[in-house]
Amino acid sequence: MAELPSTTGSPMPSFPKVDIHTHVYPESYMTLLRSRSTVPYIYDPPSNAPSRLIILSSDDNPSIPKENRGRPVDSSYYDVNEKLSFMRTHNITTSVISLANPWLDFLSPDEAAFWATKINDDLNALCESQAPHSGTLLNESSLLFAFGALPLSAPSTDIIANEINRMSSLKYIRGAIMGTSGLGKGLDDPGLDPVWAALESTQTLLFLHPHYGLPNDAFGGKETIERYGHVLPLALGFPLETTIAVTRMYLSRVFDRFPRLQILLAHSGGTLPFLAGRIESCIAHERKFVVNGGDVEGPGKSIWDVLKQNILLDAVVYSEVGLKAAVHGAGSVDRVLFGTDHPFFPPLNSKEETWLSVTMNQNAINSAFGEDSESAKAILGGNAARILKLDA
Amino acid sequence: MAELPSTTGSPMPSFPKVDIHTHVYPESYMTLLRSRSTVPYIYDPPSNAPSRLIILSSDDNPSIPKENRGRPVDSSYYDVNEKLSFMRTHNITTSVISLANPWLDFLSPDEAAFWATKINDDLNALCESQAPHSGTLLNESSLLFAFGALPLSAPSTDIIANEINRMSSLKYIRGAIMGTSGLGKGLDDPGLDPVWAALESTQTLLFLHPHYGLPNDAFGGKETIERYGHVLPLALGFPLETTIAVTRMYLSRVFDRFPRLQILLAHSGGTLPFLAGRIESCIAHERKFVVNGGDVEGPGKSIWDVLKQNILLDAVVYSEVGLKAAVHGAGSVDRVLFGTDHPFFPPLNSKEETWLSVTMNQNAINSAFGEDSESAKAILGGNAARILKLDA
Repeated sequence: MAELPSTTGSPMPSFPKVDIHTHVYPESYMTLLRSRSTVPYIYDPPSNAPSRLIILSSDDNPSIPKENRGRPVDSSYYDVNEKLSFMRTHNITTSVISLANPWLDFLSPDEAAFWATKINDDLNALCESQAPHSGTLLNESSLLFAFGALPLSAPSTDIIANEINRMSSLKYIRGAIMGTSGLGKGLDDPGLDPVWAALESTQTLLFLHPHYGLPNDAFGGKETIERYGHVLPLALGFPLETTIAVTRMYLSRVFDRFPRLQILLAHSGGTLPFLAGRIESCIAHERKFVVNGGDVEGPGKSIWDVLKQNILLDAVVYSEVGLKAAVHGAGSVDRVLFGTDHPFFPPLNSKEETWLSVTMNQNAINSAFGEDSESAKAILGGNAARILKLDA
Repeated sequence: MAELPSTTGSPMPSFPKVDIHTHVYPESYMTLLRSRSTVPYIYDPPSNAPSRLIILSSDDNPSIPKENRGRPVDSSYYDVNEKLSFMRTHNITTSVISLANPWLDFLSPDEAAFWATKINDDLNALCESQAPHSGTLLNESSLLFAFGALPLSAPSTDIIANEINRMSSLKYIRGAIMGTSGLGKGLDDPGLDPVWAALESTQTLLFLHPHYGLPNDAFGGKETIERYGHVLPLALGFPLETTIAVTRMYLSRVFDRFPRLQILLAHSGGTLPFLAGRIESCIAHERKFVVNGGDVEGPGKSIWDVLKQNILLDAVVYSEVGLKAAVHGAGSVDRVLFGTDHPFFPPLNSKEETWLSVTMNQNAINSAFGEDSESAKAILGGNAARILKLDA
């Protein structure tokens, strides 16, 4: 894989390069995870061995010693200086940070509101602490913005809607991140309507991100999964989880009822751009949707119009093939946004300075559209700056 | 959806148009399904109501009356005249027919060899009965060829290998169709090596096709699935099943051990072209694959080389976005082949003459490459004629 030229000491690029898919676990959240002994939790071995982050239920395997479960968790997960260093290495001018999965999904109902307020205030303060940092940044815009977290397990959707309203007034919050579980019953749950309504009325962008993957049996069971590490659940389970979630939203007519809802799909939509045609065909051939003895009636808006009007895609797809399909599916280069997935997928060989997980996506953009082309600049930062109002 | 111009009475096209994804249930297989009362089976209601084909376990829902379970099965499933009529309507010059799912997967070990021989001989005879049909066909080539079925549940892989050898000598057999279960443990099962070896040594193309989908929980459970008919399992479950199967083959180094193996993936690879980059990245970042303290060692051949050297894709993806990604992923327009999935996805409005499920794919090819362009002709038939030696 070709890597970017060394960037040591090089100036920031002459255009904004914005990372909209980059996660943090704020210190308070790390403490919360350390207080737990079921997924998600952090385990600190008694020795000097690195702490372990166990966030996937498939990782919490009793046959594996705790000091080897999950993944090592280092300061890149919580230390803002690591984030800034990573940004400098990769010429990223602005990052829109978000709480990493599984966010606040696992909290008991009485804890949810407290932690959402706390995390969102912490994220906002973290962004504030780094802004403005004039001289290193284009237009003196801020280094950091954030997507807030939602108290989805709260006893009432009013609490979720209230937090959406509150966070939309925080200076550095530019949207909300959410998993595919919703209130616990998936994203076609009519109980979510007050949440969609609050997101729509505040024009809060929703970053939809996978976490739960697919049942083990989809991959042939635990033994098969373990043979290949995280490859099957992360490479295939995550993208399909996202695709299922947004397809269920579409089939339940969320985008007909909330026509101004804006969602950003992780990993270039999972597989949505590639499968949108098959979704359209399966709806058009579904006997369940036949009306008037012959015509087929699916959701009011076509899946392609949803892609053009309600959906943004990140550019975290690791290939030119995927990126071009994402742009084609989105209907325009203006709806695809660069991201890194930092701090996940670090280089495993410590000799590497730039991260392969970043350069793969960077190279895909450059080879698809030409380095320094207007399209590449749009994907790398211009779109995010415009859509998320990062100069405001 | 724009439809093709009416084709009534129009001459065959001036180039071969080959359908490589088109299924049949030969009469003998229909009888076999009628003799059964568990999935897969055919139910004949006592009334004059249409027979029902129940092939998916999710369709065999005891809360639904048997006369409404599964899907209606009419003569298009077994009558060769229906196939020929469908071909004329859509200007298809040649069809490479294959037994529909779930093939012979469900047979007891002692039945498998008998039925594989029977079905493959029946398919060969069916093709023979329609050839040569000079005057209506380009180069007087045959109307029908076939992919044979494999006795996968046979007590020994020798039996499977023997049938592969035998079928490769049958005049109209041009490959074998197989599901994702293999010998029951998926396609990364080392027990399949004699099967891969037989396919490779006879240069028998393997058509890999989904059937089992994903566990219900992937879609939020049975109730959620039923709300949308077959849309979630067919639109999303099938493509991911194929992707998982071929990724497991890849991860277990089947393509390193059998470098001349040729497989044709249904539905444009499921999602493989879109996700290949993510698969590559997840392997490169998988701690399980680290060797020598830093380097990561996955399968020997890159996933992109496998796509270029070992994999063919059908063009059954129902959109220009998907088709372009398939061609881009395949590395060449010469490795993507037109198909229809007949007799599945019939028009639900009987007023429609041409099938929407066909015209969607036809239109995707025309809009991606231009009607009558060399690329369109290659996908529509030239590739199949060359690769499957349909003139021989």
